[in-house]
Amino acid sequence: MSTPSVIWVDGECASSLPLPDRGLEFGDGLFETLLLEHGEPLYLDLHWQRLERGLQVLGFPHCLPEVDARFRTALDELLARGWSRGLMRITVTRGGGPRGYAPPPEASVRIVVSATELLGAGEDTVSPAALVVAQSRWGSQPQLAGIKHCNRLEQVLAAAEKQRAGADEALMLGQGGQLVSVTAGNLFLRLGNELHTPSLEECGIAGTRRRLLMERWAPAIGVTVRESRLEWSDLESAREVFYSNSRWGLRPVSGLGELRWASQEIYRALYRQYRGDRA
Amino acid sequence: MSTPSVIWVDGECASSLPLPDRGLEFGDGLFETLLLEHGEPLYLDLHWQRLERGLQVLGFPHCLPEVDARFRTALDELLARGWSRGLMRITVTRGGGPRGYAPPPEASVRIVVSATELLGAGEDTVSPAALVVAQSRWGSQPQLAGIKHCNRLEQVLAAAEKQRAGADEALMLGQGGQLVSVTAGNLFLRLGNELHTPSLEECGIAGTRRRLLMERWAPAIGVTVRESRLEWSDLESAREVFYSNSRWGLRPVSGLGELRWASQEIYRALYRQYRGDRA
Repeated sequence: MSTPSVIWVDGECASSLPLPDRGLEFGDGLFETLLLEHGEPLYLDLHWQRLERGLQVLGFPHCLPEVDARFRTALDELLARGWSRGLMRITVTRGGGPRGYAPPPEASVRIVVSATELLGAGEDTVSPAALVVAQSRWGSQPQLAGIKHCNRLEQVLAAAEKQRAGADEALMLGQGGQLVSVTAGNLFLRLGNELHTPSLEECGIAGTRRRLLMERWAPAIGVTVRESRLEWSDLESAREVFYSNSRWGLRPVSGLGELRWASQEIYRALYRQYRGDRA
Repeated sequence: MSTPSVIWVDGECASSLPLPDRGLEFGDGLFETLLLEHGEPLYLDLHWQRLERGLQVLGFPHCLPEVDARFRTALDELLARGWSRGLMRITVTRGGGPRGYAPPPEASVRIVVSATELLGAGEDTVSPAALVVAQSRWGSQPQLAGIKHCNRLEQVLAAAEKQRAGADEALMLGQGGQLVSVTAGNLFLRLGNELHTPSLEECGIAGTRRRLLMERWAPAIGVTVRESRLEWSDLESAREVFYSNSRWGLRPVSGLGELRWASQEIYRALYRQYRGDRA
């Protein structure tokens, strides 16, 4: 359940964005979506590390301290309102400027924070997701792969397909038909006793929970994770399938078309790590 | 020379955009840039045809009559202010909605019109452009190729390179190294006595002036235009190089690195067609 958003623009509670703004014009921006639990933003350091990498790739001014300050202003106001759980999106755009694609030489940034309250307690378990395959695929664009920029039409179109199909999520493929992700999350397959996740050299977003799983949760339970090119046949031979994102942490996949996955053995062990990580 | 913009949001003169807006969040929008000359928007029908195609590809509501009405409101106000020449950008976003990639089932649109006055008369000739090659390439994404959507980071990055190099424009390649476009215009090479322009199946924007050149101006002077895959070697053997966009109509290219093009024979004949087209 979600309630309407609260929005801040450059540190002030606001209901509109000053124009012109290159975020609107060209998607010339970056964002992060953070989960707030018990009044705490989860894994803020990892979100800021990914954002920092995106700022570098897009050639934005160094503005992370300002982003962090704007975020904390918003967070303080939420806590003062008594919020405990919610999702917070931080969007950084390259601000205004003259007409045209070229960024102004002295670009400024605009920082938009929006928050949506989540009612009820956090989930002890996550219901398995039914997937469809999206016809909309990721484009192949190594230069922008991994970062969370604001050019997200591919996922928008795939999410529209998911919605029309009444599914929980949609599997998105790359231009070569390889497995990449779901519309809002990174994908993991259990092949034998190893976990495999698509490499993100060509496309996709490098999720914070994906990184945690690879660097912390899987090592803690003695499971090897490999990044590789994964094909449809890998999905057919997978013993477990799940995905990761900020909202759910980790969510098991129950099926996709004719395929069904009942086992959640590794998923459950990892989900305990995820929950324990924050206890 | 340009002056600051005038902006309308949903038909009202405005300096800000209501939030949330999916255009800001995901680049979930489309745009057109029209040249206004002698108080007339040029080739409005072709701009609306491309926009209509984009609305279909992105699954937007049918809103062209509303877009046209908003545009005319803005145009009338500009003419009342005494404007004669300018560039008008019409942006259509998928409006607001709940958090997440999936468009709301009953999406509305938001229509932003911005205008920048151009002072002085229209150009009788256009100065040749010096090019650099952008390291930033087009991604490969056939589903979105041709339309003018708001996910334009690739061109933003290439335009930043152009600017740093002090060049007039930057040649952009595709993922396979093929020639595609400049950052804001379609590319034409004269090979022998034919014109060749990159096919746009994988990436790129199908410009209105590109279409006019192929369907009207080149036939009028008896020149054949072919769409094909063009490589660097084609550039080396080209006798003339130029590009097309709304701002300049057609603009000759003087050089790129070691390459120089002095001939403008076909370019000039086409530019006369372009100017005559509007006389």
